Amino acid sequence: MKELKGACIIGQSGGPTSVINASAYGVIDTALKSGAITQVLGAEHGIKGVLNDRLFDMGLEDPEELRLMKYTPSSALGSCRYKIADPEKDDTDYKRILEVFKKHNVRYFFYNGGNDSMDTCNKISKYMQSVGYECRVMGVPKTIDNDLYGTDHCPGYGSAAKYIATSMMEVYQDARVYDTGMIVVMEIMGRHAGWLTAAAALANEYGAGPDLIYLPETDFDMAQFIADAKKVYEEKGNCIIAVSEGVHYADGSFVSEAKVAATDGFGHAQLGGLASILAQTLKKETGAKVRGIELNLLQRCGAHLASHTDIEESYMAGKAAVENAVNGITDKMIGFERSVVDGKYACRTKLLPLTEVANAEKKLPREWINEAGNGVLQPFVEYALPLIQGEPDLPKVDSLPRFCHLKKIIAK
Amino acid sequence: MKELKGACIIGQSGGPTSVINASAYGVIDTALKSGAITQVLGAEHGIKGVLNDRLFDMGLEDPEELRLMKYTPSSALGSCRYKIADPEKDDTDYKRILEVFKKHNVRYFFYNGGNDSMDTCNKISKYMQSVGYECRVMGVPKTIDNDLYGTDHCPGYGSAAKYIATSMMEVYQDARVYDTGMIVVMEIMGRHAGWLTAAAALANEYGAGPDLIYLPETDFDMAQFIADAKKVYEEKGNCIIAVSEGVHYADGSFVSEAKVAATDGFGHAQLGGLASILAQTLKKETGAKVRGIELNLLQRCGAHLASHTDIEESYMAGKAAVENAVNGITDKMIGFERSVVDGKYACRTKLLPLTEVANAEKKLPREWINEAGNGVLQPFVEYALPLIQGEPDLPKVDSLPRFCHLKKIIAK
Repeated sequence: MKELKGACIIGQSGGPTSVINASAYGVIDTALKSGAITQVLGAEHGIKGVLNDRLFDMGLEDPEELRLMKYTPSSALGSCRYKIADPEKDDTDYKRILEVFKKHNVRYFFYNGGNDSMDTCNKISKYMQSVGYECRVMGVPKTIDNDLYGTDHCPGYGSAAKYIATSMMEVYQDARVYDTGMIVVMEIMGRHAGWLTAAAALANEYGAGPDLIYLPETDFDMAQFIADAKKVYEEKGNCIIAVSEGVHYADGSFVSEAKVAATDGFGHAQLGGLASILAQTLKKETGAKVRGIELNLLQRCGAHLASHTDIEESYMAGKAAVENAVNGITDKMIGFERSVVDGKYACRTKLLPLTEVANAEKKLPREWINEAGNGVLQPFVEYALPLIQGEPDLPKVDSLPRFCHLKKIIAK
Repeated sequence: MKELKGACIIGQSGGPTSVINASAYGVIDTALKSGAITQVLGAEHGIKGVLNDRLFDMGLEDPEELRLMKYTPSSALGSCRYKIADPEKDDTDYKRILEVFKKHNVRYFFYNGGNDSMDTCNKISKYMQSVGYECRVMGVPKTIDNDLYGTDHCPGYGSAAKYIATSMMEVYQDARVYDTGMIVVMEIMGRHAGWLTAAAALANEYGAGPDLIYLPETDFDMAQFIADAKKVYEEKGNCIIAVSEGVHYADGSFVSEAKVAATDGFGHAQLGGLASILAQTLKKETGAKVRGIELNLLQRCGAHLASHTDIEESYMAGKAAVENAVNGITDKMIGFERSVVDGKYACRTKLLPLTEVANAEKKLPREWINEAGNGVLQPFVEYALPLIQGEPDLPKVDSLPRFCHLKKIIAK
């Protein structure tokens, strides 16, 4: 195979995570050391940065600040939620991307994101091939949702899962402190897949988890939900519930968007999200003290509680993307394969065709959810527990996190 | 002074914190080693445990599990929000307390709580004196609100402040990731004092904090709030706001309880709390993407992010309560005095009369708040920063917290 010399671009896309920068650093660090790659460019706000020719010269950054990307949450280069058109319908964006690629002699394109981003990668690669411009394109996965197809798990999931399990254990302590009892509804991210919400069950391993768990993998039934909660509350005097933001009725409509006529009598959609809707409903039905808690952005940016395993695997994914591309591979996403080595969890990278990954979705297997659809089973715990292991080597100043500061110098 | 021999009771009251158990452990550990104290009793759910004669024999607990109380959030013995009557009006409770004290020969009563709890302490002590029953009564302070009178700061505040500052730094990273801009409203606890919300400003020391901070110490003006947020958003493209749950209009009414006629046209009180109300208002006024985040219970139970300083000081407060009581002191609350030793922050305990502390409240000094009432000044940062220092020695199993497990054996 002939060596392909040229610049590379790394871009970040979609919702940020605690460790997406660890993956980007894996790309940048490996690319800066590669003989084939002549310049490492960071795209400002993902593909938008390419379209706008806003590319940072990552070689001009302080190496120590780059290294701190491993422990800095959110997308350090900036992200976007830009859906690129089909090239057959509108090739304006693709022509512009080609122009910018040619200007900087970009021969490697690494895109760090979820399934939409893999679709973007795929379309760009196909276009470059159609016009005969040689450029190797690799997807570097990330998503706290853990819903990418073909990989054992996704970078970002382990850290979010750890945040959720830890917070659940702490709230569990807090929520049973009075003799008067309380019901807590904790709303957890995950619009279409229940991986994140299921992570609350890890707390149960230590006797401090949710009594009930509701995921988007099964249909939600409000009457059954109320009956479940009442039963636990009457038996225990307390009830802790983990619920996915994506729970939906059998007709597919989200519970979070339902008009709750019962509460205000006029059918106005309630504000304040799902946790609030469910908490109000249970308060009315049980008379108990009820609290709704939405973990909100915190679960995806809680880098102080990241999983060391997740950080190192995220870095590994970025590194593997560069190494494979330099070795001639293109049109692949890096995936993870789990194995057991000497009785211990191990993980190595594998290559997945972008065409297979793009826009596909992986849900929690039904057999990992209990029959009643209000709890998860031991195989899930065994799957998820290795992913949250180890503490981050996050540097601190005055006991607060020291996140990276990038200079972001536009490349000439 | 003659030695007073007898049992002691430790009770916990009011809203829990990350470190109230560290104080209780300070009492229990010191009392178990004391020659004067014959039995250490833990009251189940505070004063209610005394009234119900539900007292745990803490000497029967595994010493290692007791030690883990230092790192376990919430009130391990159970808490209550029971307001004891004035003895002149109704002395039923006091007679019962005396009966239980006599039954177990209780000669020391330690009560771990906020200003209501100091009031309870005070009333019990006065009653025991009036009937000639010798019992030394000491208050061990706790409150994340930091609003106890006469002490430099309160056990529990530093850990909550650290959780708030860290979460703010992380959300800051997340909230500016897109080029489309965003406004974030973070709602922080503190009904009458702004100490907790002000802690968000610690993040500003590292360039990653809120643009605007609103505290209950000044009157809230919705028009000014909207104008402030608009100005920042237009200048920066992003705006992060920290707001106390206790912000109120000039007439004293809480913003969180306002009927927002503008949003639904029917004057229905909105659900979902203050963050949601303010986020909806700003969305309507600016058209920006807006997110409301309520830190909720997490800020008071986030023990994984506790301040080592706070944990050790909380323990010290419990220890000092026992030592002083054994030495003949009664009717005092342990307070903290700050000093500078060799250029470094130092803290030692002092004694405050219960009568002075009970039901008094300490607010953030107006001169630590900027003139516009939408930010805090450097003296606050210098005050608060030493209180959040150091990491907890929280033991973990499988990278999740290992909280204490008490046997809670009822004393004979």
